[in-house]
Amino acid sequence: MHDRAVTRRQFLNDPDDFVHEALEGLVLAHPGLELHTDPTYVLRADRGAPKVALVSGGGSGHEPLHSGFVGPGMLDAAVPGAVFASPTAFQVTVATKAADFGHGVLQIVKNYTGDVLNFQIAGEISAEEGTRVQRVLVDDDLATDTGREGGPGRRGTGATVVVEKVCGAAAEAGAPLEELAVLGRDTVSRSRSMAVALSGAAQPGSAVPSFELPDDEVELGVGIHGERGATRAPFGTAGDLMRQLVDPLVADLQLRRGDGVLVLVNGMGATHPLELSVCFREVHRALGELGVEVARSLVGTYLTSLDMAGVSLTFTRLDDELLRLWDAPVRTPALVW
Amino acid sequence: MHDRAVTRRQFLNDPDDFVHEALEGLVLAHPGLELHTDPTYVLRADRGAPKVALVSGGGSGHEPLHSGFVGPGMLDAAVPGAVFASPTAFQVTVATKAADFGHGVLQIVKNYTGDVLNFQIAGEISAEEGTRVQRVLVDDDLATDTGREGGPGRRGTGATVVVEKVCGAAAEAGAPLEELAVLGRDTVSRSRSMAVALSGAAQPGSAVPSFELPDDEVELGVGIHGERGATRAPFGTAGDLMRQLVDPLVADLQLRRGDGVLVLVNGMGATHPLELSVCFREVHRALGELGVEVARSLVGTYLTSLDMAGVSLTFTRLDDELLRLWDAPVRTPALVW
Repeated sequence: MHDRAVTRRQFLNDPDDFVHEALEGLVLAHPGLELHTDPTYVLRADRGAPKVALVSGGGSGHEPLHSGFVGPGMLDAAVPGAVFASPTAFQVTVATKAADFGHGVLQIVKNYTGDVLNFQIAGEISAEEGTRVQRVLVDDDLATDTGREGGPGRRGTGATVVVEKVCGAAAEAGAPLEELAVLGRDTVSRSRSMAVALSGAAQPGSAVPSFELPDDEVELGVGIHGERGATRAPFGTAGDLMRQLVDPLVADLQLRRGDGVLVLVNGMGATHPLELSVCFREVHRALGELGVEVARSLVGTYLTSLDMAGVSLTFTRLDDELLRLWDAPVRTPALVW
Repeated sequence: MHDRAVTRRQFLNDPDDFVHEALEGLVLAHPGLELHTDPTYVLRADRGAPKVALVSGGGSGHEPLHSGFVGPGMLDAAVPGAVFASPTAFQVTVATKAADFGHGVLQIVKNYTGDVLNFQIAGEISAEEGTRVQRVLVDDDLATDTGREGGPGRRGTGATVVVEKVCGAAAEAGAPLEELAVLGRDTVSRSRSMAVALSGAAQPGSAVPSFELPDDEVELGVGIHGERGATRAPFGTAGDLMRQLVDPLVADLQLRRGDGVLVLVNGMGATHPLELSVCFREVHRALGELGVEVARSLVGTYLTSLDMAGVSLTFTRLDDELLRLWDAPVRTPALVW
């Protein structure tokens, strides 16, 4: 198998300019966004009414996350790093200050060492400069759950979209900073994710995927930066593969008959809408057999790992408040209702 | 090159059930849609107020087109065939009847022999049964322009999204059938598209792409069913490749300094949002150099060719009426504003 190189090519100019040029294209297509450089961050062009500001960010290559979620009802600013690399503390500090209306800033941070460190430093500097900052750490990836063994803990993945949406709605409704932080952490605690990949992702300008798989295996519990999965499993039908994501999520969240969940079936880059629809059907069916209600769903490409052919599944156990916040209007490049 | 097989795999169960199961998943995720079987079509669940009904359809594998564009402000029904195969005349006839409010039905048909034939037969049967039908043929693909030489003419591609959007808006506003047909045909005449691919698409369940490319070449003027391009061109930067799409479109539409266009930069299946943003930046810059205004833009994955890594570019020359119709509200799975 491994001598069968897969040729990957991308639409780009110089790989070193890839992220910056893409950000330029994004704001050209979306006048509601404003690109700042030196350092780089994306800000809502129409700032809207004063409220607690939401700032997120992380490595690039996961688009539409995070820049595609800047807008009314979601983020005020997104801070993109290089591909799969954290933004700097300086970037985050400047973006935090720019986003602040004087009501404080909620940072939404995926649990990766670099992101955590740089957002933390930025939070401390911002606090010294007079901006109140609270941080929600998103750590929903069940594949990296090490229990009480310590270590970096679960990675942050699909639940980030949910946290950004519900906290964004609550911020628009005037919730204060501390309340948003509690809401965000509660949403994380109600959320778990798990992913499966049929192929690795290739870095821009490179033809070499992060891992190669035999035809009869899949990478189960794969990460969004080309991290290898927790295990390899046999390739199978969409039903088989989704079952291997559904079962551990249901067990960990202790979902029971009558519970209602938000289901996010997310394409990781090169997964076709037809495939995502089939996967959602399988997840819906599996939950139905358990008596768990799919109260809301989101099926599409929201958090990618470059051109990975994969699917991540996120469940969030809903209550009435989360349902209401999820349903509230949102107007961003990648999420509108 | 050609001994380097590329392994493609998909999330699916039985390839024969792929389209049907995906449609089941689509309507589970979108309660605004209703799936009918025997024969298969997708209808708006909430029919809305009576108006001229819009019906489109064609082979599957191009999602979100067409089922993802069913909803207020766009289509009333979509009629999907098997992958890359026309729906039957019977399917179209039944969907046409179901969609009709008594104000007539506008069929929007991409110019492919099977689609044209089956929609035409369905139109004739529907007319005999008392439903007024008008047909807009979308033939925007400049790569297949044979001039006056006859033949099947230009294929229908990205302009379909534009026609469905503007005619959908006009229908919501109460325009009568004949007026919508004129509007649709005028929109087609103002639109041209051209596509470039870095890889072919593989049929569901197959690992073999429709064509293979050497590392240093691209397929220029590629179709959406894995049809080979009009020519092969050297692989190059996004700027080079976009220029090869922009120039012929500008020439054919005779765009001049001061003209305003709608630009659709469309991913054909496996093209990452970062790549699409970079491509749009290049198109924006190229038009800017010519003094052509990008009055509106749509950058994303709207009309796919399964998992093809490619970009199609569509220009529509705008006037005030089209601008107003484009901006009108729309609420479908894949297009909302």
